[in-house]
Amino acid sequence: MATNLVPQVMNALEATNFYFKRAVKLLGLDSKVERSLLIPFREIKVECTIPKDDGTLASYIGFRVQHDNSRGQMKGGIRYHPEVELNEVNALAQLMTWKSAVANIPYGGAKGGIGCNPRDLSPTELERLTRVFTQKIHDVIGPHLDIPAPDMGTNAQTMAWILDEYSKFHGYTPAVVTGKPVDLGGSLGREAATGRGVLYATEALLKDHNLSIRGQTFVVQGFGNVGSWASKLIHEKGGKIKAVSDVTGAIKNNSGIDITALNEHVRMTGGVKGFEGANPLDAAALLAEDCDVLIPAALGGVING
Amino acid sequence: MATNLVPQVMNALEATNFYFKRAVKLLGLDSKVERSLLIPFREIKVECTIPKDDGTLASYIGFRVQHDNSRGQMKGGIRYHPEVELNEVNALAQLMTWKSAVANIPYGGAKGGIGCNPRDLSPTELERLTRVFTQKIHDVIGPHLDIPAPDMGTNAQTMAWILDEYSKFHGYTPAVVTGKPVDLGGSLGREAATGRGVLYATEALLKDHNLSIRGQTFVVQGFGNVGSWASKLIHEKGGKIKAVSDVTGAIKNNSGIDITALNEHVRMTGGVKGFEGANPLDAAALLAEDCDVLIPAALGGVING
Amino acid sequence: MATNLVPQVMNALEATNFYFKRAVKLLGLDSKVERSLLIPFREIKVECTIPKDDGTLASYIGFRVQHDNSRGQMKGGIRYHPEVELNEVNALAQLMTWKSAVANIPYGGAKGGIGCNPRDLSPTELERLTRVFTQKIHDVIGPHLDIPAPDMGTNAQTMAWILDEYSKFHGYTPAVVTGKPVDLGGSLGREAATGRGVLYATEALLKDHNLSIRGQTFVVQGFGNVGSWASKLIHEKGGKIKAVSDVTGAIKNNSGIDITALNEHVRMTGGVKGFEGANPLDAAALLAEDCDVLIPAALGGVING
Amino acid sequence: MATNLVPQVMNALEATNFYFKRAVKLLGLDSKVERSLLIPFREIKVECTIPKDDGTLASYIGFRVQHDNSRGQMKGGIRYHPEVELNEVNALAQLMTWKSAVANIPYGGAKGGIGCNPRDLSPTELERLTRVFTQKIHDVIGPHLDIPAPDMGTNAQTMAWILDEYSKFHGYTPAVVTGKPVDLGGSLGREAATGRGVLYATEALLKDHNLSIRGQTFVVQGFGNVGSWASKLIHEKGGKIKAVSDVTGAIKNNSGIDITALNEHVRMTGGVKGFEGANPLDAAALLAEDCDVLIPAALGGVING
Amino acid sequence: MATNLVPQVMNALEATNFYFKRAVKLLGLDSKVERSLLIPFREIKVECTIPKDDGTLASYIGFRVQHDNSRGQMKGGIRYHPEVELNEVNALAQLMTWKSAVANIPYGGAKGGIGCNPRDLSPTELERLTRVFTQKIHDVIGPHLDIPAPDMGTNAQTMAWILDEYSKFHGYTPAVVTGKPVDLGGSLGREAATGRGVLYATEALLKDHNLSIRGQTFVVQGFGNVGSWASKLIHEKGGKIKAVSDVTGAIKNNSGIDITALNEHVRMTGGVKGFEGANPLDAAALLAEDCDVLIPAALGGVING
Amino acid sequence: MATNLVPQVMNALEATNFYFKRAVKLLGLDSKVERSLLIPFREIKVECTIPKDDGTLASYIGFRVQHDNSRGQMKGGIRYHPEVELNEVNALAQLMTWKSAVANIPYGGAKGGIGCNPRDLSPTELERLTRVFTQKIHDVIGPHLDIPAPDMGTNAQTMAWILDEYSKFHGYTPAVVTGKPVDLGGSLGREAATGRGVLYATEALLKDHNLSIRGQTFVVQGFGNVGSWASKLIHEKGGKIKAVSDVTGAIKNNSGIDITALNEHVRMTGGVKGFEGANPLDAAALLAEDCDVLIPAALGGVING
Repeated sequence: MATNLVPQVMNALEATNFYFKRAVKLLGLDSKVERSLLIPFREIKVECTIPKDDGTLASYIGFRVQHDNSRGQMKGGIRYHPEVELNEVNALAQLMTWKSAVANIPYGGAKGGIGCNPRDLSPTELERLTRVFTQKIHDVIGPHLDIPAPDMGTNAQTMAWILDEYSKFHGYTPAVVTGKPVDLGGSLGREAATGRGVLYATEALLKDHNLSIRGQTFVVQGFGNVGSWASKLIHEKGGKIKAVSDVTGAIKNNSGIDITALNEHVRMTGGVKGFEGANPLDAAALLAEDCDVLIPAALGGVING
Repeated sequence: MATNLVPQVMNALEATNFYFKRAVKLLGLDSKVERSLLIPFREIKVECTIPKDDGTLASYIGFRVQHDNSRGQMKGGIRYHPEVELNEVNALAQLMTWKSAVANIPYGGAKGGIGCNPRDLSPTELERLTRVFTQKIHDVIGPHLDIPAPDMGTNAQTMAWILDEYSKFHGYTPAVVTGKPVDLGGSLGREAATGRGVLYATEALLKDHNLSIRGQTFVVQGFGNVGSWASKLIHEKGGKIKAVSDVTGAIKNNSGIDITALNEHVRMTGGVKGFEGANPLDAAALLAEDCDVLIPAALGGVING
Repeated sequence: MATNLVPQVMNALEATNFYFKRAVKLLGLDSKVERSLLIPFREIKVECTIPKDDGTLASYIGFRVQHDNSRGQMKGGIRYHPEVELNEVNALAQLMTWKSAVANIPYGGAKGGIGCNPRDLSPTELERLTRVFTQKIHDVIGPHLDIPAPDMGTNAQTMAWILDEYSKFHGYTPAVVTGKPVDLGGSLGREAATGRGVLYATEALLKDHNLSIRGQTFVVQGFGNVGSWASKLIHEKGGKIKAVSDVTGAIKNNSGIDITALNEHVRMTGGVKGFEGANPLDAAALLAEDCDVLIPAALGGVING
Repeated sequence: MATNLVPQVMNALEATNFYFKRAVKLLGLDSKVERSLLIPFREIKVECTIPKDDGTLASYIGFRVQHDNSRGQMKGGIRYHPEVELNEVNALAQLMTWKSAVANIPYGGAKGGIGCNPRDLSPTELERLTRVFTQKIHDVIGPHLDIPAPDMGTNAQTMAWILDEYSKFHGYTPAVVTGKPVDLGGSLGREAATGRGVLYATEALLKDHNLSIRGQTFVVQGFGNVGSWASKLIHEKGGKIKAVSDVTGAIKNNSGIDITALNEHVRMTGGVKGFEGANPLDAAALLAEDCDVLIPAALGGVING
Repeated sequence: MATNLVPQVMNALEATNFYFKRAVKLLGLDSKVERSLLIPFREIKVECTIPKDDGTLASYIGFRVQHDNSRGQMKGGIRYHPEVELNEVNALAQLMTWKSAVANIPYGGAKGGIGCNPRDLSPTELERLTRVFTQKIHDVIGPHLDIPAPDMGTNAQTMAWILDEYSKFHGYTPAVVTGKPVDLGGSLGREAATGRGVLYATEALLKDHNLSIRGQTFVVQGFGNVGSWASKLIHEKGGKIKAVSDVTGAIKNNSGIDITALNEHVRMTGGVKGFEGANPLDAAALLAEDCDVLIPAALGGVING
Repeated sequence: MATNLVPQVMNALEATNFYFKRAVKLLGLDSKVERSLLIPFREIKVECTIPKDDGTLASYIGFRVQHDNSRGQMKGGIRYHPEVELNEVNALAQLMTWKSAVANIPYGGAKGGIGCNPRDLSPTELERLTRVFTQKIHDVIGPHLDIPAPDMGTNAQTMAWILDEYSKFHGYTPAVVTGKPVDLGGSLGREAATGRGVLYATEALLKDHNLSIRGQTFVVQGFGNVGSWASKLIHEKGGKIKAVSDVTGAIKNNSGIDITALNEHVRMTGGVKGFEGANPLDAAALLAEDCDVLIPAALGGVING
C-alpha cells in the first residue's frame, strides 16, 4: 500500500510553503492574493521578565502569530520550548488556517509560545511566566478574536493560568482558551482527540482500498499522547499492532502487542522499553518493519494545534 | 580638531550594540539586566492590504517596535521606506530609549514603519495605507502609551491621517502624534528642531575648546531638512560653510557659501547642484575637505526620532 | 373571498399611524403612553463622505431610527434608496416593533439606510460608503443593542461589509447583522423566508374558509424575491398561478403558469415579459383578473425588515 | 455711522445660509465641499420620558446636532425651549463651527436641546429630565468629543446635573461641560463674557472710525445678561447710555442712565420699567432714538453658544 | 424518623461557620486554605441616597458580598430588609459558594441587599432606590462576573429594574439577573422551584428508609412561597399534610388538609388562619405534632439564593 | 499660651465624630444631610492572597473607603498596618473630605490599606501584595476618580508598584498616585510638606498673638518625618527647640538643640537617644516641659493623608 504524498524530508515551514504553493498553482490564485495569504494578519513579540525562585530576574521572549481571521476568530496552540522560532511558528499558524478551512470550521489560524525550557522552570516560575505573558497579550486574544490551546510543553494547567489571568482583565471568560481542565469547563474527550483523528484518517484511507482496521498490521512510531491513543483505539477495532517505539526504545511482537498491558507498563516505567509482552527492536529498524500501515506519530506534537 | 568617537563604519544596529555594551561595562550592569534591556517590550508586525488606485490589491508589512517604557510613555518615528527592516528598527527604538533617558525626558523609546516606497504610491494610496496601518495598531499607541512622530518618508500629513483615524476609535486625540500640522495643534519650530540641535551640539563642542561658531569653517555632508537648517543657523551665527553636498552633487566655496541664496536655489531646482555661488566638487572629496568642523547630516534621518 | 383590511391607498407612514391609533383606541391606552410609543427611542443622522472612484468627494446622509427596545434588542433593515426619507423610515422602524411584539419575538424595532442610488455607485464605492456609515453608527448597534439586516438596495454583501467594519472596532462579531452570507454564518433559508411567510399566511387564511392551496387559483402582483418564492412554493403545493406581473410587464395563462420555467426565463431575461408559456396581459388589468387569491407582492420590500 | 451688514430681517437659519453661501462664493469653494459643509457630522434625536411630580409620565424630545469636528472637539449650548426646532438648531450648530474657526479657536460646532418649557417644570422634574437626556447622549459627548454649555433656558445648575450624570458613566469629568458653577470648576468671568464681547466689538468698530467709547451715546435694546453687562462695561469706559429696553418696557435719559442704579432697580423689581433715574419710552420708539451706537442685545441668547 | 443534623439553635452565620469548620476538619484542609476560604473575594458597601416622594432625601446602605469565584461567575440574591447585616450576608454568600459546589454547578457564591424596609417605601421609591443601587454596583456584576437574583423583600419587578438600569451602561443584558419576569426572559417554573426542591429532598430522604411520599404524614411550618408549593406537590404525590402554620396562626386536620382549598383560602384572606377545612392549633404546639416528616419552611427565605 | 481645642483624649474616630457633630450643629444642617454625610460613598474590602517567599499562601484583607466625591475626585493614603481597622479608616476617609473642603481644594476624601505588618514581609512579598491589591481595586481608583498616596507603612516605592500595576490595565498613568518617586513624576518637596505645614500653622497661631517663631521655645513630641522636618524648619527660622522625643527616648537642652547635628545622629543611630548635644529626659516628662509651643508630632501619621 504505497503512498507518495511527501516528496522528501522537510521541516514544518518548508512543507507548509511547498504545499501552499502547490495549492496556489492548482487554484490559479493570482500573485497578489498569494502574497496577502502569506503575510500574517499580526505578529506580536513581547518581553516576559519574571523573578526566578532564587530571586534573580529572567527574561523570556513570548509571541503570538495570528495568520488569518477571514473565516472566523483565530485558533492555535501556545508552546513552551527552548527552540521556539519565529519562522516555524509562522508556518504552524498558517497551517491552522488551512486545517480549519479544509474541515470547514469557522475559525482562522494562529500559533504562539515562549522561548523557554519548561523542564528548567519550577511550577511557580511557570505560573509567573504564563501570567506575565498573558498580561502582555490579553488585548489581542479573546473568545471572538483568538483562542489559545495547549501545545508542546504546555497543558491544561497552563490554560487554567491563562484563563485566570485573562479573567482579571475581562471578567470570568472560560471561552478564552480550549484544552482547559474539565473542571473549569474543558471538553471531555480532548485527551484522546488527536489519536482518534489518526484512527478516523486510517479508516478512511483503508476504506478507499476496500479494507478495514480489522485484519491489518500496524507499526506505530511514537507512543506519546497521539501514538498511544491511536494504538489503543486501533487495537479495540481489531487491528494488530506489531511494533511501537518511543524515546526509550522500540519493541516488536509479530502476534500483536497487548496495548492495554503496554499502557500500564508505560505508566509504571515511563516508556515502552522493557515491556515483557514484546521483544526489543532497533529503533532505526522500526521504519523498515513489514506492515500494512505505518503510523508516524513521533511528530504529532509538531503539527497539533 | 580630531575626535575619534566612532571606531569604524557601522550601521545603526551595530553602532547601537557597540555603545550599549560599552555602557553596560562602564556601569557594571549584570547580565540579566543587560538581557532585559536588549529585549524590546513589544514588537508588532501587521499586514496592511489596500486597494491600489487601479483596483488591484497590494499588501504591505507594517510594524511598531516598543523598546522600553520604564521611564514614561514610548515615543518614536514612523518611517515609510522600501528597506525598512526589523533589526534596524529595533536598534532605532532602543536608541530612542537612550536618547530620552540621557536628556532626562520622561519618555521611553519606540520606532515603527511600513515596508513601502512612498514615491511609488499616490497620495490616496498613502492615505489608505496609513489609515489601515493605524487601524491595526491603534490599540497599542496613545498619549499615555506610545506616541508616533514623522520620520523618513513620512511627514505632517501622515501624522494628520494617523490622528484622524485614531480619533475614530478613541475620540478626538491630537496628543496621539507629534509632528502634526501646526493647524491641528502641532508645535511651532519643529521643522528646524533637528538642525537647531546640530547647532547646539556644535556650540557645546566648540566651547569645550574655547571656541565659538564665529570664525570656524564648516563642511556639511547632506543638505536635507537637517543639513540645510543647521547650515542656515550656523551661517547666521557667523560660521563659514565651505562645502555642502546632497544626492545631486557637492559644491565648494572657500569664501563661504551664501546659505540664503543656496536655499532658494535648492527650492527652485531640487538640489545643490548647479548653484552659481560655488564650484562643483567631487562628492567623495567632500569628506576630505579641510575644515574645522565636519557635519555628517546625510544620515540625519536615520537617527532622528 | 373578500377582505377589507385596508380602507384606502395609504403610504407606509399613514398606514402605520392609522393602525396604531386604531390599536390605541381598542386597547384603551392613555394619551401619555401613546405619545411615548410614538416618539422613537433614538434617531441618528450622520454624514458619510467618501471619495468616488474618479477622485471627487461625495457626501451622503445615513441614518438609523431605533423605535423601541422595551422587549429586547432592536432589529431592522438598512436600505439604500435615493428617496429614503426620515418620516417613512420612522414608520418602518415602528412597524418592526409591532411585528416582533405580535409574533412574541423578544426584539424591538429599528430601521435605517442611506440616501443614495446604489445603481449609480460602483462596488468599491458601495463598499466605502457602507464602511464609513458603519464607522459612524458602530457605537449604537451590536448583538445586544440593535441588529441590522438587508433591505431595499442592500444584500448579503452589504451585511458582510458591515460585519467586517464593525469587527474592527469590537472584535469578530458575526451576530451584529443578520442576512449575512451563509459562509460567514448567515442562516440557510433566509432568501425564501418572506415568500414562505406569504405561503403560510395564505394557508392560514384558506384554512379559516376550510380550503387549502391545492385547487385554488392565484394572481401574483410582483415577481421579485417575495413574489417568485411565494409562487414557487404555492405551485409546489398544488396551487394554480394564473397571472403574474413585474416591472417588465404582466402575463397570464388560465391553465396555470409553469413557475420553474418562468423562473428560468426571468433569470435569463431579467423579467417576466416575453415568457413563452403564457400570454401578455395589460399590467393594470392584472388586479381585475378573476382568482381565488390575489397576492400583492409588489410592495413586499417596503415592509420587509 | 451707518452699517448695512444685515440686508433684511431673517431668522437664524436664513441668516446662516445667506452668509454661508456668500462665503462659499467669495472663497470659490466647489459644490461638493459646500454640500459636505452643509451636512452635519451627526444629528441625534432621543426620547426622554420622566415621571412628573404628580406621578404621570411625560415624554420630551431631546437632540444634539454636531456640525463639524474638523478643527477640534465640538462645542455648543444646550437649550430648553418649547419651540426648539431641528432646522434652527442645525443652523446654530453650524454657526458655532464658523465662530470657532473665525476666532481661530481649535473647536468644532454643535448645539442641542430639549423641546420643553422649563418654566412649566419643577426643579426636580428639570433634574430628572436633564439626567435622562444625559444618559441618552453620554456616549457622543465628552472632553475630547463634544462639550455642552448653557444656553436659553439652561444655566450652571443644568450643567452641574449633566456633569454629575456623565461622571456616573465615565468617572469624575468636570471638563465635559463649560458654564458649570465656579465651585465645580467653572470659569470666573463667564457671566460677563458675552457682554464684554459686545464692548470689545464696539471698541474695535469705533477704532476703525478713530473714535472711542468715551463721548459716544448708546441705545441698548435688551437688558438681560448680555445687555446689562455691556451697558455696565460701556458705562465704566465713559460711554453715555441714553436708552435701554427689556420685556417690561423702555426708558430714556438724555443725560445718560446710571447703570449701577439701574442694575439695582432691575434686581429689586425684575425689569427696567419704573426706574426713577429715567423717563418711560415707547418700546417701539427705542430703535428710532438718536444715538451713535445701537446695541441690539435682545436676541443675544439666540446666537450665544 | 429522627435526624440530629442540627446540634442546637444557631443563626445563619453560626451554622455556616459550624459546618464549614467541620468540613475543614473532615477534609484535612490546612489553616491557610481555611483562612483564604473564609475571607470573601470582595465586599462592597455603597451609599444610596434618593429623593422620597415627599421631596425629602433618604440615605440607605446597599452592599454586595462576593465570596468566591474559583468555580465560575458568582451568584446570589439581593434582599431588602431593615435588619440586613453584614456578618449574616457574608455567611449567606459563603453558603452560595458551597451550595453551587456541592451540586457541581459551575458558579461561585455572592449575596447582597439594602438595609431598608420595603413595606415603608412606595413603588416609585423602591424603583429609585433599586436604580441608584444598580448604578453603584454595575461595574462588579454581570453575566460573566456576578448574577443577582430575588431574595427576601425583592421579586421579579426588582430584577426588571436592575436589568433595565444595568442595560443603560452595558447594552441590553437580560443575563445579568435571574428571577426576572418571564416576559423579559425569566425561566418558567422558578416560582415553584424551592418548594419542588423540598419535595425532591424529602423523597430522597424517604427512599433511604425505603419509604415514599404516599402514606406518610407531614407537618409544615411556614406556608409562604416554599411551604405552600412543597405542600401542594407533596399533596399531589399522595402525602397527607396534617398541620401547617404561618404568621397568622396554625391549623390541623388529622385526615389531611385539602391544600388546593387552603391555597384558595390564603389567596382570599392572606393567611391560613380561619380555614374551614381544619381546626385551629396553637402555633407553638405545631412542632410537637406527631408526624412522619416535619418540614421547617419558615426559614426558607433565609437560605434561599 | 493655653489652648483648649481638644476636650479630652479621643481616638481618630471619636474625634472625627465629635467635631463633625459640632459642625453640624453650628451650621444647622438637617438630620438627613447629616446622615448622608456620615455614610461613605463606597467601601470596598478585598481578599489579597499571595505566595510567601517560602511557598506557602497568605491571605490579607485590603480595603478602600471612599467617603465623598461631591467636590472632586477622592484622595487619601494607603496604609499597611497590622491593626488597620474599618471604623478608624472610615473616620480618616471622612477627615480627608473635610481637610480638602476647608482648604478649598477640589478633592473629595478617601483612605485605604491592608491589614498586615509590613516589617514581617520581605520586599518581594510587599511587592506581590501591593500588586494583588491594585488588581482588585484598579477599577475604582484613577486620576479622575480616587488617587492614593503613601501613609503609615507605605512609601514612594509602594506608590511605584501601584502605578506600574495600574498602568498594565489602563496604560501609563502616573497621575493615579501622588507621593511616587520624583524620578517617576513625583513632586519635589513632598517629603518636607507635612512638617512645613506644621511650621505654617505655628506661624499663623503665633501671629494671632503678635508673636513669631524667633524667640519662642518649642518642645516636639515625635521626631519622625513630620517632627524632624518641623524642627529643622523652626530651627532655621530662629526658634529654640528645647526637647524632642521619639520611640527610642527623649532628650532636652535648655539652650536649644542643634537640629542639624541631631538629624545626622538619627541618620546614624536610628533615633534621638544618645545624642551628645542634649541630656536624656524621661519620655513621660517631655509633655510637662515648660515651653511656649508644644508640637505633638507623634500622631502625625494618623491624620496625614
